[in-house]
Amino acid sequence: MTATDTTAAELTGSMRNGVDTATLFATLDAVKAAPEAAKFQFRATNEWLSGTHNRSTIADFYGVGEERVHEHTFTFDADHPAVLVGRDNGPTPVEFVLHALAACLTAGLANIAAARGIKLTQVRSTVTGDIDLNGILGLNPEVRNGYERITVRFAIHGDAPAEKLRELVEQSRARSAVYDVITNRVPVTIEVETN
Amino acid sequence: MTATDTTAAELTGSMRNGVDTATLFATLDAVKAAPEAAKFQFRATNEWLSGTHNRSTIADFYGVGEERVHEHTFTFDADHPAVLVGRDNGPTPVEFVLHALAACLTAGLANIAAARGIKLTQVRSTVTGDIDLNGILGLNPEVRNGYERITVRFAIHGDAPAEKLRELVEQSRARSAVYDVITNRVPVTIEVETN
Repeated sequence: MTATDTTAAELTGSMRNGVDTATLFATLDAVKAAPEAAKFQFRATNEWLSGTHNRSTIADFYGVGEERVHEHTFTFDADHPAVLVGRDNGPTPVEFVLHALAACLTAGLANIAAARGIKLTQVRSTVTGDIDLNGILGLNPEVRNGYERITVRFAIHGDAPAEKLRELVEQSRARSAVYDVITNRVPVTIEVETN
Repeated sequence: MTATDTTAAELTGSMRNGVDTATLFATLDAVKAAPEAAKFQFRATNEWLSGTHNRSTIADFYGVGEERVHEHTFTFDADHPAVLVGRDNGPTPVEFVLHALAACLTAGLANIAAARGIKLTQVRSTVTGDIDLNGILGLNPEVRNGYERITVRFAIHGDAPAEKLRELVEQSRARSAVYDVITNRVPVTIEVETN
């Protein structure tokens, strides 16, 4: 937390773990009253650069009834390492999936802890994904293309008993968008324009 | 492609789309001869910063029989936008999933085009994900936490007929690790350490 994170909310006691719980509960009430506000569309645009190297831009999204822009335009390079015939200009696409999972579970955890009055002091996690590339290389039809398994290891410290800290992780898992995407199916449509 | 991408491989004609096809085919032959080389483990470590803001580091992985490090250590911040009670210090975790999908399909496409002797001139894509946050907010048990649907729109240009360019996308989809992760289930185990 930086000095600029200190706000009126913090002074009035509604700020916990860097989460403005008053705003969090007000947001929940607002969506309860107008469920359509919760319909979001997120977007990434990608441009191929060379070989396995490409770059995505994340700038705008739709939510709470209107088009919105992030405060910054974010760009991310992806590539394969040399051992996978790339130039290592960025992580592999599958590594970004692990980051997304860690980030989603951790964000949820901080919100849930704040809502439950638990002060977190440190949250760290390591996510590992095991993959057999015989799948994507087309060398063994019995091997899937994606991860065989993913393991998340959390180390959590805060002002609550171990049992309560573990319950935060369980609730975060139960409400995680990325966990749902990875452990359940999402239909994907692909359209192609050529000329 | 930059000037430094011009290599002996390019001069001998094995370089196409920035892919060294000679190395690509040699890698396939090597894995055919020693399938264990294709067992990889990718990793991300994440640290909570404040509220929904956290940061992942991607540095090392295991593959081709040994521990390896990326040429650079990559770090990525994730956060929620203000409208979702965050500070917009990075994209949301679910947006990284869209980037990962675009990047994976695009990397595969460039490799497959190179292997098939097709020269690509431009590949762009936009990935959109529709999500109803009544799920993660716990306001409607009938709404899932993750994306309801994801749509990928490719615009591809190259020296092949439209039909051949479309076949590249189809083959990339059929061999994409991230597409498989999103459209099929991956088992995720979560472990928690507290003290």
